[in-house]
Amino acid sequence: MASIEGLAAIEPYDVFARSCPSRPTLEHVTGRWGGLVLGVLASRPLRFNELRRRVDGVSQKILAQTLQALERDGFVHRELISTFPLRVEYSLTPLGRSVADRLVALFAHLESQMPAVLAAQHRYDERVGR
Amino acid sequence: MASIEGLAAIEPYDVFARSCPSRPTLEHVTGRWGGLVLGVLASRPLRFNELRRRVDGVSQKILAQTLQALERDGFVHRELISTFPLRVEYSLTPLGRSVADRLVALFAHLESQMPAVLAAQHRYDERVGR
Repeated sequence: MASIEGLAAIEPYDVFARSCPSRPTLEHVTGRWGGLVLGVLASRPLRFNELRRRVDGVSQKILAQTLQALERDGFVHRELISTFPLRVEYSLTPLGRSVADRLVALFAHLESQMPAVLAAQHRYDERVGR
Repeated sequence: MASIEGLAAIEPYDVFARSCPSRPTLEHVTGRWGGLVLGVLASRPLRFNELRRRVDGVSQKILAQTLQALERDGFVHRELISTFPLRVEYSLTPLGRSVADRLVALFAHLESQMPAVLAAQHRYDERVGR
């Protein structure tokens, strides 16, 4: 455990610093797919193919990589359920839940602000003559 | 204005849907650099080179593209200040502030949870024999 204590000693963590270990974790959580995966898992545990349908547009390979990174960070729990046929279910850990709740709030806020965003895009495009 | 009303009519917006216009906006806000740019602007308006120093690791080209996308979405205001020499200052709009506040809260939460994340990574790596 000495290595973990060694890492903990470099606090405060700073996502703005390139070499901070919080930077890759931030990218797993907010990257193109990680945020959406945490967001759909916030509703309930899901199997791989269910996840893939809900996170519209993600490829099988990228979804697998995304889940692996989120599992390694301790946000997602992967459980093999011994039914026949076997199935694998993904769920949020308490740590993942605490992050997903904040992401879901951000998503809901962005969705609610889309009319203002689209109006801004329209004004910008008129201005620059797009 | 008809086109904007047309777009507004497709509510509810859904970031999980591949074709929803909220998806690219989510990516501007949470992508590799967009979130960090909004996060540093949450402290105060900044000039381009100040931003570049604060968002450690971003290239000049990518920072310019990121700022342009955030300006087009209506999150960032770009102002030419007629001093000599001229300078350009970037600040949050009220819409950008509402998003940045939620991002900053997410960053602070992630930073505070990094000891748990690093411990999870350590356990995962031991388990898979990395």
